[in-house]
Parts: sequence; structure tokens; C-alpha cells
Amino acid sequence: MHRNPRKKKQGRVYLVGAGPGDPGLITIKGSNYLKKAEVIIYDRLIDDSLLDSIQDNTEKIYVGKERGYHAREQQEINRLLVAKAKEGKIVVRLKGGDPLVLGRGAEEAEILAQNAIPFEIVPGVSSVYAVPTYAGIPVTDRRLASSFTIITGHEDPEKGRSNIRWDKISTCSDTLVILMGMGNLTSIISKLVTHGKPLSTPVAIVSQGTDPQQQTITGTLDNI
Amino acid sequence: MHRNPRKKKQGRVYLVGAGPGDPGLITIKGSNYLKKAEVIIYDRLIDDSLLDSIQDNTEKIYVGKERGYHAREQQEINRLLVAKAKEGKIVVRLKGGDPLVLGRGAEEAEILAQNAIPFEIVPGVSSVYAVPTYAGIPVTDRRLASSFTIITGHEDPEKGRSNIRWDKISTCSDTLVILMGMGNLTSIISKLVTHGKPLSTPVAIVSQGTDPQQQTITGTLDNI
Repeated sequence: MHRNPRKKKQGRVYLVGAGPGDPGLITIKGSNYLKKAEVIIYDRLIDDSLLDSIQDNTEKIYVGKERGYHAREQQEINRLLVAKAKEGKIVVRLKGGDPLVLGRGAEEAEILAQNAIPFEIVPGVSSVYAVPTYAGIPVTDRRLASSFTIITGHEDPEKGRSNIRWDKISTCSDTLVILMGMGNLTSIISKLVTHGKPLSTPVAIVSQGTDPQQQTITGTLDNI
Repeated sequence: MHRNPRKKKQGRVYLVGAGPGDPGLITIKGSNYLKKAEVIIYDRLIDDSLLDSIQDNTEKIYVGKERGYHAREQQEINRLLVAKAKEGKIVVRLKGGDPLVLGRGAEEAEILAQNAIPFEIVPGVSSVYAVPTYAGIPVTDRRLASSFTIITGHEDPEKGRSNIRWDKISTCSDTLVILMGMGNLTSIISKLVTHGKPLSTPVAIVSQGTDPQQQTITGTLDNI
């Protein structure tokens, strides 16, 4: 309805999961919103080819956070999302993986709601299981593993103390997926073993998952 | 290379995750393989519109399993995959959600490998987090939940005894996602409470997730 013809166009934001890296793993819906976007605010892990095909007059804003980022940067992203939507723009916030799996998507959605900006969240393929898949490892197999747990390997230092229940996490489910765990690998292994994970437990470490540069190392907890 | 011009065309199989129901959540890669397919072997939870757009000369085989399916049916699917690929066909095995998250994808891949049939697994958006997203619930939020666990709510009766460590699963991570849990809802709640999950724990039950018919009920463990 356009009762007031001079009313400013209503902006909106799509929080879109781009998937784990391989550009073919973005969803049809996410890809369609990218084509419609007037502004794209994108992360560090987004494949260039996803942006190359976007029309030239679309504003593309890089907000990738490197290791050791500061909260200020997230505030700047939140501010950008709100400001561009309030200008009446169709904004795509393009995030690696899925917007609500171990990222700041929930916070971004909350800021948009607080500012009465219409938004939609478009799930993406998560690296949680897609990266193991590309390494040839199913996270579940009816005969071996019917549960899996996901934790972050680099806990937010703002939290003060660890929210990860290592005593239970270590042995509660069949498969354990640790995202962004390389920086803390030694202490993670130590915590798992201390809390009862057998030294013979098979381990795979995958870097640059689903990219052509993907690398996988396999071993066991005592020799990885 | 085609050294022998009379050599039969090599068949191959794509195990494609269709996503959780909303047809817009299939990946670009999965959608492209669907268009190339000569045979599509598809599950019960596949949205009709994904198949409507497929060319008419593609053979479409429905292998949906209803509740209480038998192992024989999976063997029949395995047999079909191998037979069609051996005929030299490009086969897409279209599965709900992601092929390797709580399904039989790993078994199907193994059968293909045993029969030396080339295959590729195309991850899909999993209902594990996409259904909560469509119900407005992030599975993680940096301020509240940095871990989550996925279990199946209808364990394979062939297993003999439960592989789910209810004593640890109940409290090991911040969010617990139970797939296909409606049939065992009462006993699941009972197990969680017995093993220390507070009665005040917020619960959401979502049915037909991401479909237009999606329904969500929320409450707490003691009143759901």
C-alpha cells in the first residue's frame, strides 16, 4: 500500500548465508537476493566469484574481520545495516556459512528488529557438516554416529569464563565438530583427553574447507 | 579420454541435499545437477516445485519412506542407484536436508564406492538450524549459546540399545536440537528432566519446518 506517494521507499535487509566457501553452495534464494541487492555488506570468507556476477551499480562494502577483531567493528556493521536500510535500500548482509551458526547473525537481526527494519534470514549451508563432507567424512552414519556436537574453538574473550562444559562435551555425543579451533589446538586436545576422550580417537583437521586449497590432516588424538 | 569409442558411457551419481523444505533453499550446484540429471531418485520430503521444473524426459523415481520403514527399502534404493549408474546414466539422489546429517547418505556413498561408481556429495541446508531459523530461533548467539548438539529423536531400532548418552547430552551444550522427535516426545522430555535439564528450560516444537504450513509451539519442559 502506498497511501502517501511521497513516503520514502522502505528499505529491508536480507541476512544471507553464503555457504562454506565453494560458491556453488549458495542457495537459489540467497543468490536471487544478491541479484536484487542495492547494497552488499560482506565478510572475509566470501568467494570473489559470488560478487563478480553482481551488477556494477550495486554498492559492495567489505567488513571482513581478521583474527583478533574488536567489538567496535561489529558495532560499525550494525550501524551500516541500519543506516543503509533507513536510506530505503535493499541490503544483503552476506555471511560465511549460515547466518545463525556461530556468528553474529542473531545480534544483527536483533538490531534490525529494534530499529523496526524489515528483515529476512536466508539459511546457508554450514561448514559444520559441509567441510567434513568435502573431506570425505560424514558427521553421522546410522551404524556409527547418531549425534554430533558443535562448539567454537575460539571462544569470545568477552565472556570472561568458558561456557563450554568440557567435562561433558568431550564424551556426550558421537562426533564433535570444533570450528575455528586451530589457534587453540593444543589446549583443546588437552581438555578432551583430560575429560575422558580416548587417545585413540580419530581426528581430522581441515583447513580452507570446500575451497580448491582445502587441506586435510588425519590422525588420532595422541599423534595429530 | 575415449580410447575405446564403443565403451559404454560412464554413469555417475550426485547425492544432493535439497534443503529443509523451502525449495529456494536448494543450492545452485544441486539445482544445476538436477537440470543435468537423466534419473532423479527422490525422497518423501522433497518439494514438488523442485521436480516440476525438470525436463520431461528425465526419469523420476519416488523412494519416500513412510514412518516405520524397513531396511529392505533402503536396499532397494541402493540397488537402484547402482543399477542406473551402471546403465551409464547421470543420477541425482535427491535427499531432504543434507545428505550426511542423520540420513542414509553415508551408506549410499559406501555402496557406490564399493561398486566403483563415481559420485559426488552436494551438501544441503540442514533442517538442524534452518527450521529453528524459520521459527525465529537462532541455535547459537554469542551472548547465550556457543555450542549445540543434534540427536535423532527416533533411534534406529536395529541398534538394539540407545547410543544416546542422555546423562551427558541433557546438559552438555547450550542448545539441543532433536530431529524427528515427535513420536517419542514424552519419553524424550522424561529423559532430559531425569538427567538434570531444568523444568524451566525453554522448548520449541516445530512441525513442517520452512514449509508454508510450518507450525511452532513454545513453552518450557514442564508445560509443553
